[in-house]
Amino acid sequence: MAAYGSNGVLRGEARFTEEQEGLVIKSWNIMKDDSANIGHRFFLKIFEVAPSARELFSFLRNSDVPLEKNPRLKAHAMSVFVMTCEAAAQLRNTGKVTVGDTTLKRLGATHFKKGVSDAHFEVAKYALLETIKYGVPASMWSPAMKNAWGEAYDHLVAAIKQEMRPAALL
Amino acid sequence: MAAYGSNGVLRGEARFTEEQEGLVIKSWNIMKDDSANIGHRFFLKIFEVAPSARELFSFLRNSDVPLEKNPRLKAHAMSVFVMTCEAAAQLRNTGKVTVGDTTLKRLGATHFKKGVSDAHFEVAKYALLETIKYGVPASMWSPAMKNAWGEAYDHLVAAIKQEMRPAALL
Repeated sequence: MAAYGSNGVLRGEARFTEEQEGLVIKSWNIMKDDSANIGHRFFLKIFEVAPSARELFSFLRNSDVPLEKNPRLKAHAMSVFVMTCEAAAQLRNTGKVTVGDTTLKRLGATHFKKGVSDAHFEVAKYALLETIKYGVPASMWSPAMKNAWGEAYDHLVAAIKQEMRPAALL
Repeated sequence: MAAYGSNGVLRGEARFTEEQEGLVIKSWNIMKDDSANIGHRFFLKIFEVAPSARELFSFLRNSDVPLEKNPRLKAHAMSVFVMTCEAAAQLRNTGKVTVGDTTLKRLGATHFKKGVSDAHFEVAKYALLETIKYGVPASMWSPAMKNAWGEAYDHLVAAIKQEMRPAALL
């Protein structure tokens, strides 16, 4: 059961189809060859919409390294894309996000500690979808592709949110 | 002095030029003939980026009225556009936002009570700029126009934020 019920959303099994999984995988296969660029555009969009989100990344504060060259920001962007892809495959296979418990607890604790809000997760979703829209050939982009990525992302975030609590309580 | 210093931003006089004021006024004069549509698109963009922002509007929760027909949402959108225009004129004339004290205290208290966050103000700014971008003829839109609206909005929001405290403390 994908019952991320603590915040009242995403209860029950998700119906994620093979076609939806295919849309996510197909587009990621195209984007991943250009992943550095894609990751950079993802964060540029996040910071365009919500400049204050920079404050969430302590390593950006006193850094002279340009955004597109920051290895930690690049790694974060890749995690978002790759984990969303994996979430799509898991949802199709099992109806739920099956990120390892340790990983999920770590992600939950980190996002809690940094004070990541619902609005931040939403802005990141918007940035993710905008980045994909302009990262794949125009003929490939479709509302169905947008929804497939959006659903996989929502389930991944719901799983992370459920683990958002102080690390001391783990 | 436009010293909205409590949160460390926008200290000192703003240098807002006649040209910047002109860019704001000129574009608003075009958009205002279609203000219902403009206001609708502004909120659609806010809710696209941050769906949870709907929760900030108690009158949307149990309403069957479609968004584009909701008179209170329309009024809110118009306030944002008109007050940003007025802020542009005030900044050019006096170097600061001179919204009446009573209005500012009321706006501060309301936004405080609703729990409007920095991220929400940022999403609204992004939505405002996107709405203007697609609300004026493509040949009129420019980085300078974007900056003029953005600066006027930032100063208006800084003035509101300075008054964000519980109404009981007024």
